[in-house]
Amino acid sequence: MRLPFDADDPLLARAAWSRIAEPGDRQAGELVQAIGPAAALGWLVGAGGAAIGAVQGEARERWLARLDGLDPRRELRALRVIGGRLLIPENEGWPTALEDLGAQAPFCLWVRGGEAVASQLGELLNPAVAVVGARAATAYGEMVTAAVAGELAAGGVVIVSGGAFGVDAAAHRAALAQGGLTVSVMAGGVDRLYPAGNEALLKAVAQDGAVVSELPPGAAPRRERFLSRNRLIAALAQVTVVTESGWRSGSHRTAAVAAELLRPVGAVPGPVTAASSAGCHRLIRQGAATLVTGADEVRELLAPLGLAMAAEPAVAAGLLDGLAPSDRQVLDSLPVRQGATVTAVVAASGLAIAQVMAALARLERAGRAVESGGTWRKARQGA
Amino acid sequence: MRLPFDADDPLLARAAWSRIAEPGDRQAGELVQAIGPAAALGWLVGAGGAAIGAVQGEARERWLARLDGLDPRRELRALRVIGGRLLIPENEGWPTALEDLGAQAPFCLWVRGGEAVASQLGELLNPAVAVVGARAATAYGEMVTAAVAGELAAGGVVIVSGGAFGVDAAAHRAALAQGGLTVSVMAGGVDRLYPAGNEALLKAVAQDGAVVSELPPGAAPRRERFLSRNRLIAALAQVTVVTESGWRSGSHRTAAVAAELLRPVGAVPGPVTAASSAGCHRLIRQGAATLVTGADEVRELLAPLGLAMAAEPAVAAGLLDGLAPSDRQVLDSLPVRQGATVTAVVAASGLAIAQVMAALARLERAGRAVESGGTWRKARQGA
Repeated sequence: MRLPFDADDPLLARAAWSRIAEPGDRQAGELVQAIGPAAALGWLVGAGGAAIGAVQGEARERWLARLDGLDPRRELRALRVIGGRLLIPENEGWPTALEDLGAQAPFCLWVRGGEAVASQLGELLNPAVAVVGARAATAYGEMVTAAVAGELAAGGVVIVSGGAFGVDAAAHRAALAQGGLTVSVMAGGVDRLYPAGNEALLKAVAQDGAVVSELPPGAAPRRERFLSRNRLIAALAQVTVVTESGWRSGSHRTAAVAAELLRPVGAVPGPVTAASSAGCHRLIRQGAATLVTGADEVRELLAPLGLAMAAEPAVAAGLLDGLAPSDRQVLDSLPVRQGATVTAVVAASGLAIAQVMAALARLERAGRAVESGGTWRKARQGA
Repeated sequence: MRLPFDADDPLLARAAWSRIAEPGDRQAGELVQAIGPAAALGWLVGAGGAAIGAVQGEARERWLARLDGLDPRRELRALRVIGGRLLIPENEGWPTALEDLGAQAPFCLWVRGGEAVASQLGELLNPAVAVVGARAATAYGEMVTAAVAGELAAGGVVIVSGGAFGVDAAAHRAALAQGGLTVSVMAGGVDRLYPAGNEALLKAVAQDGAVVSELPPGAAPRRERFLSRNRLIAALAQVTVVTESGWRSGSHRTAAVAAELLRPVGAVPGPVTAASSAGCHRLIRQGAATLVTGADEVRELLAPLGLAMAAEPAVAAGLLDGLAPSDRQVLDSLPVRQGATVTAVVAASGLAIAQVMAALARLERAGRAVESGGTWRKARQGA
């Protein structure tokens, strides 16, 4: 079988794969990562190509069924008409954070937006926070979302969300209102702004920021694509915050992916009498999210203890003398200047929370650690 | 110096010490624990008694100043008039949980209440939950408090609180309304029901439950005594729940003592837009409290993983084969029937929260662990 385009061009080959394989197709991802997009395409269309490694015949059948009428040049033209750029890992501007998805990383990113944003999306997304939650948000949820997203955006943080009604829309809107940058990740092609009711908002997002998708223009936002889309939202941001969610919500999928990627997750609590906050409470209870009450506390998640520590002077060896091993470990994990939450100390020390709390109490009594406003830091020597 | 009463009677000697030493006086506690209340009293009044161990002269001066007019028989008569009983560690009915306070355990407990309750207070306090929070509670806080305390009390849990306005009063009231048992811990003598505005409520508490204090009748509820009183609230209950609290609240002291005693602490979240919930959010963020949204989740804290596991059959050795050490540790920590929260698994396994979450995800994928409603349990074999 012959393809009507130059399949050796990685841009065209990746664009082709974004149509051939469904988002998150692990076998396709492994194949492309193993031999490259062009060779993988060549193998797929090759007459009587030998089976490669672990790729099952069933997967190949599935992909072959998508070859009919395949010509990514047409989709690139469609993108050019609405304004945008196709990003691939081989080029600058690619958000390298997506590689953390491993075999489920997207083949490419169809970016609808101005050239200034689209060409350096990867750099711009640092720092970025995903703000997600219920479509059926309450007035409380929309207000909290707007406050958190607006304040973060005003401080230069890119707000990533899914463009849905409710929390997503409130997050995008607040970022735009602050003159901040916001990125909306679609479950279908970026030419189909979904939901239609948010079309004006998403056009504004594309104008000032970017509307992105791993699927080519023309692709329909099918049900299962919303779930796989959520992994991109989590992967594009360094922190994910659920600002309001009921017991079941697609945003929990985003939070779960963020946790799998070892990225911090925050959740905003609400009245326990409101079912609309039950999901956030559940995430916090499960230990899957840190309770956050505002943008400041989200920023704490963006600046994890490890980074803050890197700037600190090394602890003088003598200071650690006479301490039990776990106390020493916890003291060693404490920042000198800005305090760290117990959760952060737990993460940094690698100890269980009960051990950390007991050690902090002992260190405080010994004048080695100081608590202030719920956070802990080392006591200054001689203070 | 001669005392007008039989100082060899431990009841009278302990009653005397409850007047001589301020609540939580560690030196007095250590002295009485070391040589007994009678001998300690004998040493104190002994002419030219030699200094004992670590007792400083300054402490002795402080205690001697309280000997003037000392006669605990008078205070026992005062208690008898209003109805009640003096509990001491040597007698039945003593809440042995108080011993966890170590040198800060009270010398005795002045109990105002019916004989049936007063004589077996220790037994009755199992299970007991301390429900505490802000005096300036909002309508939301009072409603949540009433729901939590009422449902717990209806289920046979004793509600311990401090008799203050706001959350405390709502907790006592809800327990009484459910025909449940409630105990109010005073910062002064049990003859002085404080605050006066809650006198009718506290009389009802004394009638159906008990009003208790470590201070003898006549003692004034001074400012610092509220803080030391809070340690008794925490120690008398197996779990402490803060249902609503602002950034600063005496209830945080109660929560801190409970944590020091390694007893679970729960906190109820509220709107992040309300300063009245800032304290609860802070406790949860610090890892000092588990987020709870209702009585069911408080009951989970009452039935910790360890206890639930005791009733479970030992894990067949073969089931653990082929797992990484941390996965094995986490699987071993999971209950078979009622699920455990991630926090509980962290506590039971002794691993860091990140390790536990990663292990749970792997165990779930391997079909060894099951998540349901935010809690985890072992998958049934063959299921």
